[in-house]
Amino acid sequence: MVTSIAVAGASGYAGGEILRLLLSHPAYVRGELRIGALTAGSSAGATVGELMPHLKPLAERVLEPTSLDVLQGHDVVFLALPHGHSAELAQQLDASTTIVDCAADFRLESAEQWQKYYQSEHAGTWPYGLPEMPGNRERIATSTRVAIPGCFPTGATLATLPAVQAGLVEPHLTITSVTGVSGAGKKAQVSLLGAETMSNAKAYSVAGQHRHTPEIKQNLQAFTKDSVSINFTPVLAPMPRGILTVASAPVKPGTGAEDVRRAYKRAYASETFVALLPLGQQPQTQHVLGSNLCHVQVELDETAGTVVMTSAIDNLTKGTAGAAVQCMNLVRGFDEAAGLPLVGLAP
Amino acid sequence: MVTSIAVAGASGYAGGEILRLLLSHPAYVRGELRIGALTAGSSAGATVGELMPHLKPLAERVLEPTSLDVLQGHDVVFLALPHGHSAELAQQLDASTTIVDCAADFRLESAEQWQKYYQSEHAGTWPYGLPEMPGNRERIATSTRVAIPGCFPTGATLATLPAVQAGLVEPHLTITSVTGVSGAGKKAQVSLLGAETMSNAKAYSVAGQHRHTPEIKQNLQAFTKDSVSINFTPVLAPMPRGILTVASAPVKPGTGAEDVRRAYKRAYASETFVALLPLGQQPQTQHVLGSNLCHVQVELDETAGTVVMTSAIDNLTKGTAGAAVQCMNLVRGFDEAAGLPLVGLAP
Amino acid sequence: MVTSIAVAGASGYAGGEILRLLLSHPAYVRGELRIGALTAGSSAGATVGELMPHLKPLAERVLEPTSLDVLQGHDVVFLALPHGHSAELAQQLDASTTIVDCAADFRLESAEQWQKYYQSEHAGTWPYGLPEMPGNRERIATSTRVAIPGCFPTGATLATLPAVQAGLVEPHLTITSVTGVSGAGKKAQVSLLGAETMSNAKAYSVAGQHRHTPEIKQNLQAFTKDSVSINFTPVLAPMPRGILTVASAPVKPGTGAEDVRRAYKRAYASETFVALLPLGQQPQTQHVLGSNLCHVQVELDETAGTVVMTSAIDNLTKGTAGAAVQCMNLVRGFDEAAGLPLVGLAP
Amino acid sequence: MVTSIAVAGASGYAGGEILRLLLSHPAYVRGELRIGALTAGSSAGATVGELMPHLKPLAERVLEPTSLDVLQGHDVVFLALPHGHSAELAQQLDASTTIVDCAADFRLESAEQWQKYYQSEHAGTWPYGLPEMPGNRERIATSTRVAIPGCFPTGATLATLPAVQAGLVEPHLTITSVTGVSGAGKKAQVSLLGAETMSNAKAYSVAGQHRHTPEIKQNLQAFTKDSVSINFTPVLAPMPRGILTVASAPVKPGTGAEDVRRAYKRAYASETFVALLPLGQQPQTQHVLGSNLCHVQVELDETAGTVVMTSAIDNLTKGTAGAAVQCMNLVRGFDEAAGLPLVGLAP
Repeated sequence: MVTSIAVAGASGYAGGEILRLLLSHPAYVRGELRIGALTAGSSAGATVGELMPHLKPLAERVLEPTSLDVLQGHDVVFLALPHGHSAELAQQLDASTTIVDCAADFRLESAEQWQKYYQSEHAGTWPYGLPEMPGNRERIATSTRVAIPGCFPTGATLATLPAVQAGLVEPHLTITSVTGVSGAGKKAQVSLLGAETMSNAKAYSVAGQHRHTPEIKQNLQAFTKDSVSINFTPVLAPMPRGILTVASAPVKPGTGAEDVRRAYKRAYASETFVALLPLGQQPQTQHVLGSNLCHVQVELDETAGTVVMTSAIDNLTKGTAGAAVQCMNLVRGFDEAAGLPLVGLAP
Repeated sequence: MVTSIAVAGASGYAGGEILRLLLSHPAYVRGELRIGALTAGSSAGATVGELMPHLKPLAERVLEPTSLDVLQGHDVVFLALPHGHSAELAQQLDASTTIVDCAADFRLESAEQWQKYYQSEHAGTWPYGLPEMPGNRERIATSTRVAIPGCFPTGATLATLPAVQAGLVEPHLTITSVTGVSGAGKKAQVSLLGAETMSNAKAYSVAGQHRHTPEIKQNLQAFTKDSVSINFTPVLAPMPRGILTVASAPVKPGTGAEDVRRAYKRAYASETFVALLPLGQQPQTQHVLGSNLCHVQVELDETAGTVVMTSAIDNLTKGTAGAAVQCMNLVRGFDEAAGLPLVGLAP
Repeated sequence: MVTSIAVAGASGYAGGEILRLLLSHPAYVRGELRIGALTAGSSAGATVGELMPHLKPLAERVLEPTSLDVLQGHDVVFLALPHGHSAELAQQLDASTTIVDCAADFRLESAEQWQKYYQSEHAGTWPYGLPEMPGNRERIATSTRVAIPGCFPTGATLATLPAVQAGLVEPHLTITSVTGVSGAGKKAQVSLLGAETMSNAKAYSVAGQHRHTPEIKQNLQAFTKDSVSINFTPVLAPMPRGILTVASAPVKPGTGAEDVRRAYKRAYASETFVALLPLGQQPQTQHVLGSNLCHVQVELDETAGTVVMTSAIDNLTKGTAGAAVQCMNLVRGFDEAAGLPLVGLAP
Repeated sequence: MVTSIAVAGASGYAGGEILRLLLSHPAYVRGELRIGALTAGSSAGATVGELMPHLKPLAERVLEPTSLDVLQGHDVVFLALPHGHSAELAQQLDASTTIVDCAADFRLESAEQWQKYYQSEHAGTWPYGLPEMPGNRERIATSTRVAIPGCFPTGATLATLPAVQAGLVEPHLTITSVTGVSGAGKKAQVSLLGAETMSNAKAYSVAGQHRHTPEIKQNLQAFTKDSVSINFTPVLAPMPRGILTVASAPVKPGTGAEDVRRAYKRAYASETFVALLPLGQQPQTQHVLGSNLCHVQVELDETAGTVVMTSAIDNLTKGTAGAAVQCMNLVRGFDEAAGLPLVGLAP
């Protein structure tokens, strides 16, 4: 039986990355996955080859306008659209269609938080596509709807959850995430030009304004009774891809370096895509480039009384499209790791 | 039957890239390829994980000192060593061992040219590992020895050979190749520091001094009776990987744009790894990043009376390690494209 | 007496760079230069501080809409506008106003070439703002109109003119110029995004299509009786600024390396802003970053029978705004080098 | 009267930057400053032109071996040497010589902290070369010895001191500083190669291990009675220069956004080199590139209950060599801002 897949928003960075991964998915190679409709907004009518010459095997494919008509009838629909547009389409697709949504619409549980950060009506909440969070793998596998996490929440949650869940830190986290420029999407905007972003670093959406802040908080709050606070700052750095997250929190009295390490080992022992690095080695975004891996490290700063947790992901792979394929695999019964690179493109 | 593979010089960029590719080689996934000895020079004793954390599946493997003892007994030996060292080992390995040499030792046919450019004794000539050159695929497939081309000659030859072979240009070529910094190898050297190479472009080994010059000439000379001359200039640009080659040559009288295009279409129609781009699209290194592809374009400049030929490759993949795996596939009877990415990592 | 200056198109990269230079111009520091109207198109109404926070001393200044009214009455008007718009304004300003035009409108002598490359009516020809070309310094100093060269023609002309003028090469030049991304201007365009331009190199406007091609040709043709041909290819590289030009041409019989070197020494002996590097050293864009210098090198490739000429400039400084200030200095009787950095910002 | 200057360690990045600044120092231009001995370690014997072609006006100068003999007799000696070596020389130079030390030797007041972080004997404490810290300007101006701050402490102190001093935050600071690669110095080291640092971000010396941690703490502790704790993490980003600092601390009860802003305005109202940006604008390293400026912003995160303080400097200018020249100006009675760029090199 062949599973047919549509990608809405295929001309953006997330959509293109989903296609990159699908093309080497073993089920695609075996002919059991079929790449069906590829849709776009203003780029509809163009070929994949014109817009994304790196996807050579799909070069002749024409992008269709994004619409319900074009998308329905597929077994799986990946939505890589702006939020709002995503929810609108999702709500019209058949219940039996597997929908993997890369937008924010169905991530937040709190309608109030949604309203505050997205200034629109809350569309609902779907199983959250970070299978490495306890309980999520099962929720995803038994649903036909998945809300893929934001790229920052993925890096931040994987870096900090074991310490928070094990109660080793006060859940007052300061998180700075250094991101590559593709995280901002394929938008024609002066502030994202090469000339503005090369040889440059800048923080943005500081002081809790970034929309991923409530999402990080929600992820951690689910695993502690203490009230979580998140001080989150994204920093734009001159690289195409990658997120390096530096998080810290006050250590709880009586917690030692080994307790911390043990908690992380336990949390990730059986995870394919999260690697706790050996002591002394720090995550580097280059080492996970193009892969679905998250490299994690954790250290205790005894002088400052804090635990320092770091992680590296590729924002477009584990941070978006890789997670999307991983969740599709879970929903559709493929091997969870199918089609997902385990080796980074370094140097 | 399992094919055992050794990689000499596994800690360098070429060696690491060979391992990256082997890890997703279908024969490796099926258990029919075994990664045996991995050797290094001054890094011997370290683990792969310490030096190349992106190769997580091999993290525990220990690098052994490069020696005949360690290498022999494997079915395939990849040599990713400095020239000289490469030849020395190659000459001692069993005749039945498949040797894929990424150094320069066995590339040049002319002992005189070897002497001139490498100031040492000529070790011999092996089948040249660019299967896309007419005749080479067969030569490689029937040998147990392959000399992998230099990265610049790969980009330059694929860009220019169809025009030269078809006699459409005077074989007096001016070639400027813009390369990423990994091309210089993993050498601790001030001029290769990030601070020296970022925000910077510079030519080097100009005016025919680069050792890849006679290699490019040899490749083209084999396909024309006219005497070839090569004016080759490499330029170092601030990117980790990639070679963008710009070549031009005087058009021969009576040749039109369509003649040129036809020659390229014919030359590459059945090649998996060389793509002639649609008219109007230029090769970009980002589009072939991490893949074994070469993107090619050719245009006629009627005012200047020249043909302009451009190509993009990843210097570490099609430019070195990808070609090495491609040639191993040919020698050992695997599918030629096995384990070789067809999709680039863009953006 | 105070000289008043207006900058039209002050919010673009060229306009901003003119302001950067003026702020440290000794006459400005002494109070003899006054920065008057700063104009913009769609950015009119914004302050300099909002758009260009690096120009702190002008932060409070408000950008006015570009119009004749706003510009006239100043002693000097810098035009950093798109071509066409530039000519339109220039033709209306008083004859006594010094106009330094950074657009293409008044660079070409041939109405036919203008028509062919710019598809519009030829506005005329002004003294060409490259004082290092023989005769130009005097022409500029005695005019109130200057056409500042394109950034590529500056690098290409300074690299090649001494060899062409001295008759040491056949004037059939192959020129590849590697440019930083600011050369494309501050345009919101997907192909110029950081994610598209980092880790990437690509040629564009190949095969004689680039509009700077006839300009380079005109510069060289003026100094030789042989018919000049130019094969010019620009390459976009991942750096904010800088142009590295690699040019080559067939050496004329009987010309030796020393003849070539002597011609360059003679040509640039008394030039402040052009430095012939010592033998063995190649120009690097980093070494001229932010300065008004052009580093030049020339070598003879005896095997290929060519002369290889290289140069490095900062496209925004010597390539545009620095040349503009240099020409203003000449016209207005300031020291030619006033306000123009002689030291590059490396690393 | 002419002031003679020697630079020890002139071939490194700090030494080269001191020379870059001196060359446009008005006193140098007027002939009142003389650049005397330039010394180096393994590079002694080479010319400035060979090693630092961007310093064209000094190209012919020969680097001498670093020794007491060569340095003494100058009015001012800049030491841009590794710590230890710096102290050794400093202790032998005449008391009347102005010594501006860019190493760490004389920065820390606590012998115990010195011992802990530098594993050697404490050499002493000199006036701390950050004139913008209350009281320091006077201390520097009346001494002949100045210890230039580390680059991270400069960015971190300027970002956070006003809030700490005014008692608006609990002095428990979490600081992440994103730095360009020149911060690591001109050391031939594999981990600093272009291929390792481009397209990459990584934290290092995390969990309080970085030697600048006690220095930041000392700076803040001097202005509060509460016990300061510093959780400091440096991150290496792919740019040649620049430090972007993101700091946060719990806001004290009753403190509002306007209190915070007022404290910063007051602190920096009369400072030439520190600019509090308008609300809504964040510091960017590109905007201070090559300048002696520090851009600062501060915001209140009401949800998290923290104050977020950010700053951008050029690590080689305000972070090292600019501060060194600024302090020399104070000691020798020049205008404090002489020779120090106020405009950044953007884009």
